[in-house]
Amino acid sequence: MKAFFKVTDLNRVLEYIPEFPPVGTEEIPLSDTFGRVLASDIVSDADLPDFVRATMDGYAVRAASTFGASEGNPAYLTVMGTVAMGDSPDFSIGPGECARISTGGMLPSGADSVVMIEHTETLDSTTIEVYRSVAPGQHVVGIGEDFGKADIILPAGQKIRPQETGLLAAFGRETVKVCKKPVIGIISTGDEVVPIDSTPMPGQIRDINTYTLSDMVREAGGVPLIFGIVQDDYDMLFEKCSLALEQSDMILISGGSSVGARDFTIEVLSALPDTGILAHGISISPGKPTILAKVRNKAFWGLPGHVVSAMIVFSVIVRPFIEHIAGLKYKRAFGIPARLSRNLPSAQGRIDYIRVRLTEKDGILWAEPILGKSGLLNTMIKADGLIEIGINTEGLDKGAEVSVITLS
Amino acid sequence: MKAFFKVTDLNRVLEYIPEFPPVGTEEIPLSDTFGRVLASDIVSDADLPDFVRATMDGYAVRAASTFGASEGNPAYLTVMGTVAMGDSPDFSIGPGECARISTGGMLPSGADSVVMIEHTETLDSTTIEVYRSVAPGQHVVGIGEDFGKADIILPAGQKIRPQETGLLAAFGRETVKVCKKPVIGIISTGDEVVPIDSTPMPGQIRDINTYTLSDMVREAGGVPLIFGIVQDDYDMLFEKCSLALEQSDMILISGGSSVGARDFTIEVLSALPDTGILAHGISISPGKPTILAKVRNKAFWGLPGHVVSAMIVFSVIVRPFIEHIAGLKYKRAFGIPARLSRNLPSAQGRIDYIRVRLTEKDGILWAEPILGKSGLLNTMIKADGLIEIGINTEGLDKGAEVSVITLS
Repeated sequence: MKAFFKVTDLNRVLEYIPEFPPVGTEEIPLSDTFGRVLASDIVSDADLPDFVRATMDGYAVRAASTFGASEGNPAYLTVMGTVAMGDSPDFSIGPGECARISTGGMLPSGADSVVMIEHTETLDSTTIEVYRSVAPGQHVVGIGEDFGKADIILPAGQKIRPQETGLLAAFGRETVKVCKKPVIGIISTGDEVVPIDSTPMPGQIRDINTYTLSDMVREAGGVPLIFGIVQDDYDMLFEKCSLALEQSDMILISGGSSVGARDFTIEVLSALPDTGILAHGISISPGKPTILAKVRNKAFWGLPGHVVSAMIVFSVIVRPFIEHIAGLKYKRAFGIPARLSRNLPSAQGRIDYIRVRLTEKDGILWAEPILGKSGLLNTMIKADGLIEIGINTEGLDKGAEVSVITLS
Repeated sequence: MKAFFKVTDLNRVLEYIPEFPPVGTEEIPLSDTFGRVLASDIVSDADLPDFVRATMDGYAVRAASTFGASEGNPAYLTVMGTVAMGDSPDFSIGPGECARISTGGMLPSGADSVVMIEHTETLDSTTIEVYRSVAPGQHVVGIGEDFGKADIILPAGQKIRPQETGLLAAFGRETVKVCKKPVIGIISTGDEVVPIDSTPMPGQIRDINTYTLSDMVREAGGVPLIFGIVQDDYDMLFEKCSLALEQSDMILISGGSSVGARDFTIEVLSALPDTGILAHGISISPGKPTILAKVRNKAFWGLPGHVVSAMIVFSVIVRPFIEHIAGLKYKRAFGIPARLSRNLPSAQGRIDYIRVRLTEKDGILWAEPILGKSGLLNTMIKADGLIEIGINTEGLDKGAEVSVITLS
């Protein structure tokens, strides 16, 4: 047995994340913020709402005026007027009085709650019967009850979903300071790799990695910058890497799957100024021959040439590095709990990532390992996600509870 | 008790989906396909791979030459040469012979498998020892083993993830026919609603729905087209709706939260040519006052004015309509199984959607209902997803298994 790599543990590799600095910030219009990451805490400059607002259609009242009201013993209230939407009412409500109000309307002074219209009956133009009592504060939102003035309403490092955009709109933020999207340079290598508009000769394949990795970069919040295919040649690779280093915040070289090409990648990385090789081989499968170098302050990855391995390494290792330099601090992502549909053996001493399909049967979600040779792209097409088999685990039994990392 | 709406069951509303036609197709470059929907089946025009390819670094052999090989009794093989990456080898392998090969290399004729380099030792420049036997086909991928010629490799209606882009690259598809993104017109109504660059007066609020709904449209695969705020005025609303109908494939009107404004929406919809009101009130909470009309072939929605209700109605009802007209047929989306952290009451006769936060404790994923008045935006900010309480259910017990519909 011959050892090719002195492999590094996955956790050790992930510990290098903080060594790479986030790429900076920019101010953008609110309508462009979807999916972006907040660069600084958002502090409210007002109470939300800043007036007492009805949450039901009905009548604004003093709750005390309704105490004891029932179908058999209704309360009789005098209608003092109608609250116009968007207006501050110019009248007030005393005991035994009420005002017509719609959802979202501003309560007149003196009123502290809303009786739902369903619980009333109109007797004449100025009198209603109320059949249920309300408590003070019922069916209204009080001043600052949603968000208070000077609260941190959203933290730096939070990804912006539709509701966060809505909150920023509520506070009138026409522009928002977000983290810049890191530019991720992508280089494919390998004498066997040809551009997709070529017809491969026997022994050649089209460049798949440039496309899969570009889309995974987009998904992770980065901007792919494509440097094309480089032959297995030291000088050409050195030149392309130097160029990519100037123009990108992180670089992914995929391929160099032949032993000689892998050596080129390491040689080129070592020859670049201010380089440290942080990992040359990682204890995961697939993906063992992955290289991580730090060149100046940038992460430089040598990914496996095979598309499936490259995608899994990206999902498991590269993505958290990109998210970090993209400023993301709070990730609301959860593995999907499922049960394993069959026994799965695994080698100790490495973490195995198994492609699975999710299927629901009798209300139970099953993770079904995808059979077939691991190098086939069709296994990724069939897969909904990955499960992890830990480094000290010999395998998992059918029915075991697993957590599925979704793919897209 | 006064009934405002003759509510329609959610399932009945969803049955209207096929009445709205998909919006058409377009041809776009492969690098722009991420997240798009395939408009037609993709049929392979070649085998993938179209040559027998090594999946390990090592030696291409006839498997029979290694049968019986072990550490104590190695097989001795003669090295006939090295397979250059990307080349078709110009020599063949007979019994007792082998060739150096790297992952991805093309097997010489006569070879049927690869011995991993780890299981060999070099004796001299033309002789190796092999310590393990291989089976025919081991560590190689055969012709067409990933995808066969004339296979349907991807079906129309499939969303394109990074792996699908990769597969299209492998088959040299420089452009891809995808479904057009539907244009979704967005109108906010309400006399209380002001643009986000205004400072609201007492009783007024900024226009949140335009922003949350725009982002939800983007997420669902549509393109938002913003028509701004319309006051509660029949003529203005009619004019804006007519304009939106010309320019959009579907329209969302939110607001009109006051009783009178809701009446305007129904009146305007009824007055548009070729209109049928399909639902006026839906048996869900929140979201009951939702309106669905069919105007010509387009869906016209009246959504609740409150941001939380509008977002939930969008997630549960509007989104599948958008996905349908966007051509999506195969959705790989799974609720996240979790356990409910506390008892939850619910009214019968409607489906309740409860905002929950997901938390992991002792390896179990808990869905924690978000307390607080349902109308508050902060409940959506805290939420990771929604759970559904069925129409005939009186509530759920603590510990009940629930399926969480994620929000973004």
